[in-house]
Amino acid sequence: MADSPDFPQGMSCPTPANDTERVQLGHGSGGKQTAMLVRDRFFAWLSNEILAKQTDAAVLNLGSTKIAVSTDTFVVKPLEFPGGDIGSLSVHGTLNDLAMMGAEPLYMTAGFVLEEGLELEVLDRVVASLARAAAEAGVEGRKGRADDTGDTGGAVEGGVPIVCGDTKVVERGKCDGMYINTTGIGQIDPAFTPSPEKARPGDAVIVSGPIGRHGIAVMAQREGLEFDVEVESDAATLWPLVERLRDAIGDAVHVLRDPTRGGVASALNEIAQSAEVGIELNENSLPIPQPVLAACELLGFDPLYVANEGILIAIVEEHVASDAVKVLQSHPLGAAAAIIGRVVSTNSGIVALKTAVGGTRVVDMLSGDQLPRIC
Amino acid sequence: MADSPDFPQGMSCPTPANDTERVQLGHGSGGKQTAMLVRDRFFAWLSNEILAKQTDAAVLNLGSTKIAVSTDTFVVKPLEFPGGDIGSLSVHGTLNDLAMMGAEPLYMTAGFVLEEGLELEVLDRVVASLARAAAEAGVEGRKGRADDTGDTGGAVEGGVPIVCGDTKVVERGKCDGMYINTTGIGQIDPAFTPSPEKARPGDAVIVSGPIGRHGIAVMAQREGLEFDVEVESDAATLWPLVERLRDAIGDAVHVLRDPTRGGVASALNEIAQSAEVGIELNENSLPIPQPVLAACELLGFDPLYVANEGILIAIVEEHVASDAVKVLQSHPLGAAAAIIGRVVSTNSGIVALKTAVGGTRVVDMLSGDQLPRIC
Repeated sequence: MADSPDFPQGMSCPTPANDTERVQLGHGSGGKQTAMLVRDRFFAWLSNEILAKQTDAAVLNLGSTKIAVSTDTFVVKPLEFPGGDIGSLSVHGTLNDLAMMGAEPLYMTAGFVLEEGLELEVLDRVVASLARAAAEAGVEGRKGRADDTGDTGGAVEGGVPIVCGDTKVVERGKCDGMYINTTGIGQIDPAFTPSPEKARPGDAVIVSGPIGRHGIAVMAQREGLEFDVEVESDAATLWPLVERLRDAIGDAVHVLRDPTRGGVASALNEIAQSAEVGIELNENSLPIPQPVLAACELLGFDPLYVANEGILIAIVEEHVASDAVKVLQSHPLGAAAAIIGRVVSTNSGIVALKTAVGGTRVVDMLSGDQLPRIC
Repeated sequence: MADSPDFPQGMSCPTPANDTERVQLGHGSGGKQTAMLVRDRFFAWLSNEILAKQTDAAVLNLGSTKIAVSTDTFVVKPLEFPGGDIGSLSVHGTLNDLAMMGAEPLYMTAGFVLEEGLELEVLDRVVASLARAAAEAGVEGRKGRADDTGDTGGAVEGGVPIVCGDTKVVERGKCDGMYINTTGIGQIDPAFTPSPEKARPGDAVIVSGPIGRHGIAVMAQREGLEFDVEVESDAATLWPLVERLRDAIGDAVHVLRDPTRGGVASALNEIAQSAEVGIELNENSLPIPQPVLAACELLGFDPLYVANEGILIAIVEEHVASDAVKVLQSHPLGAAAAIIGRVVSTNSGIVALKTAVGGTRVVDMLSGDQLPRIC
């Protein structure tokens, strides 16, 4: 357009901004580009000591209570996929960010952007699914605490209530069915504060379940791909696993992280950089389901970069590693838990993979947009 | 389409859902249709005792601390308008919901949905504006409290910090530049808990400033309308006004409400219904700026339904009404404060306007979509 010879003489020709000066899909990938956008465009203006920590959730003091707060906007496409939908995902994603700080989820808010023309039937299904996920979240958690004396105020028994909401409607073509923001509030136990910078050389790296299911399930549904075995999203609330780890292992759990956008690779890179340690993974130990491997081969993806929404990475002291795996395996969500590597003092900030054939390769952060809009 | 004679024989004809079974723009208006959508599609699944209160913000107990939480997604179009932009509006809108519960704003979260192709220059301006609004919010509040002993934990001195955030990117044409969700957390003073159902017959109805500026400013910018006198949005943080009312009038302040989507008319209708009282307004007392009146006449709008983002309605005991007006007028934001009507025991749930020519007309809730996407 800018160079069109038809451009009326005498008028100045509008110069469109260079593509590097515009938002690109890769800025939402959860990898390098996202990190740069956040650093250059948000932290430049907004920085404060809480935000600067860049943890999954912010830790705040309110009177004598320590809480965790996390916010997430969900734009997953399509709205419904095998194993979940944007409603349940909005609950799991935000509550898991709290759980990764060791925080027991207490309350949530929900903000909807709806596209004009969205079928109310679809909205109904999504809201019902969101409600079910919220009602089921934290059930075990609340039952399991002997010292629960009503500290949670108005929290609804056996679930995480949506305490306030908002609905906006935009014209056709200004949204993609619906987007949902959820913000969660959780209560922090001062004796249990896992954090990325706490990883120490010698620690074991554990994953709680099969890798790569969410990203592949969403991608397959979006693109209409059919595999021999359907891959279902792993989306689930991780609090029950965290609670069991806390009760059994306590502060020997150094780091918890849910490997969502950017996958296991990006999550481990963030930990390695934050704690200034190296991380070594064993390819042979990675629990990657055969259908995920097959789909990744077909699509040219690396499963380590595929998003998960129902597994966690736990970095624990080496002497409790096998106990931690057993604790995870005692819950259905953790049945496939495994030690996948260890923290080392060499190669600070780097994640290395010992391949099945005996070689070693560096597993960098995701750069670009392998799988946009998976959450 | 459904009745097209060209539809291939033998194939079943897809029946598109009736328009009444789809989301319509009016569902986002903040009026009757929004109320119905929320009741039928959200409360049907999500109801709990906190959500059921339908106040501007939820009130939660965390240990011994009582907090207010509010969430809002902003989809204003255009992103920038006279007197503000989507960034500053995202701060003012959410913090004002807290203030209307008497809660001092402490913390905020921010979740961005960005459209591929958005100029980073625009993003920069909006984020800088959001940061400025957050830094300026609550300054007076924090200074003014003699008993502030650091109760606010990690809160940043002289502002409301953004403590966590999220960024998603969607493809071109799947958003309108950007949408921003903000969620705010505020601290409630148990001795000051204004609430819509507390309106009592005999109370005075006060408005803190000129009516209708925000909606007209946004609409004029969007449609490229030019008036003799430009109308600027009133968007501002109302906490300083609330704090002054609290300190001077205390619990004789029965109700606080910011008349945003749906305007003064919808806010008063909600109060009348909630408290089961009638409300009488005097047309002669309404502070409607001449340029707003002129624009409304031109566009066929009623200023009582036009959104405001920087004024509040206070319903106070009659004997403190003139004091309350003076307190409001002592701050620049409240310079045009005025008593505009009173609460009556007749006509429960109804808002009536005594017109300038001596008649009376019922001022119903907004029905339909007078001004979509003004916040």
